Amino acid sequence: MHTENIDRRTILRATAAAGVALPAAAPTTAAGSAGPRIALLLFDGITAMDAIGPYEVLSRIPGASVLTVGKRRGAVRTETGAITLGVARALREVDRADVLLVPGGGVADVQADPETIHWIQRLHRHTTWTVAVCTGALILGTAGLLRGLPATTYWALTDRLASFGATYVPRRFVEAGKIMTSAGVSAGIDLALHLTARLTDERTARAAQLVVEYDPDPPFDSGSPDKAGPDLRRYALELLQGSIRP
Amino acid sequence: MHTENIDRRTILRATAAAGVALPAAAPTTAAGSAGPRIALLLFDGITAMDAIGPYEVLSRIPGASVLTVGKRRGAVRTETGAITLGVARALREVDRADVLLVPGGGVADVQADPETIHWIQRLHRHTTWTVAVCTGALILGTAGLLRGLPATTYWALTDRLASFGATYVPRRFVEAGKIMTSAGVSAGIDLALHLTARLTDERTARAAQLVVEYDPDPPFDSGSPDKAGPDLRRYALELLQGSIRP
Repeated sequence: MHTENIDRRTILRATAAAGVALPAAAPTTAAGSAGPRIALLLFDGITAMDAIGPYEVLSRIPGASVLTVGKRRGAVRTETGAITLGVARALREVDRADVLLVPGGGVADVQADPETIHWIQRLHRHTTWTVAVCTGALILGTAGLLRGLPATTYWALTDRLASFGATYVPRRFVEAGKIMTSAGVSAGIDLALHLTARLTDERTARAAQLVVEYDPDPPFDSGSPDKAGPDLRRYALELLQGSIRP
Repeated sequence: MHTENIDRRTILRATAAAGVALPAAAPTTAAGSAGPRIALLLFDGITAMDAIGPYEVLSRIPGASVLTVGKRRGAVRTETGAITLGVARALREVDRADVLLVPGGGVADVQADPETIHWIQRLHRHTTWTVAVCTGALILGTAGLLRGLPATTYWALTDRLASFGATYVPRRFVEAGKIMTSAGVSAGIDLALHLTARLTDERTARAAQLVVEYDPDPPFDSGSPDKAGPDLRRYALELLQGSIRP
């Protein structure tokens, strides 16, 4: 990634371009070193960025492994129908993870599926962190994991949290015990940087931020419901509805 | 996405949650209405977020269609090896698009592949916009599309642009004629919001920003090489190298 060739020579060239010198010693991130095992739940109707944003950050942690998990091996289709993501392992094949990452999207079928909900409950017992992005929080809620906790979710559905015994907190992401939840879609990137710092240290999180060049500069300032106002809130929900394929 | 059920009733509930009222009339984003046809190039070694960030924004444009295109139908594997993305159409099956979107990642094999380079040149003749994210700019450069133009790319490889006759501009994204290029990975989201405004109008772009709740608030401020400084630049390149699977 981000280099013409995936080899040390190219990294050295890239390093030179960046005006820094890489030590002659082996990199500190040698493959095989122990790092967090991250289980990424995938399902039909998923919002791709809910999964890919955090993946892109967390996969840079030294020794980290990311395993995609779903109802069955194969692929899932995102809610627009345009993108498919591969599923490496079926739920029954995975019984431990350090980090369980639950993205959002159209989550009703997941909430209604006892196999998935029980799997989440089972993995959660031994995770270091259980994390939801966007409406992934509603899945955690269905699994009973948000009871009595502060949490957040997609801006248009924050009122749903109360039904799970959770308290909505208007923040980009919320840490409560070993559970983290984020606001919608792109907020998973912010959450993942915080999670990277918790799993490693701030220096590594800052370096991961640079790996994905996350120095955001949106050309507009309508990314939260308050900043957008009622007209854009309504229009956004129309765009959302129009982009979803049944 | 972002609703428990993908139907009008749920959107209405969500709308109510957002404190706004949806009109009784049909949404303005009915399926089948003419919108931009977006061809998204996928290849082994791709950085997933380079593709998924812009996709997540652009797919909300009324009537937009996103088609994944690659050397052959099937799937490609991202540079970490952990994620696969489905390819709906082979290059030879696609000869027109309004928007050609070229993500980055490990791009050497793409640069060295005449079929892909010729396909890009062919599609570019009739596009409204030809867009590259991250090291996708190096692919456009190889195709000869950046000659004489201002452009940007991944922070560690900006010096490569000169070899294609392009002039590096230190901006989050650069528009030059009908070509747009962005900085690394997450910068594709910023570019996509600008592109959405160019394809439609600012109101639609602002609504798409709210759909993906893009109100960034990173917990750290190390997302650009200048802000990160030399130690983090070096460490970021180590993390990058360590996360890539050959």
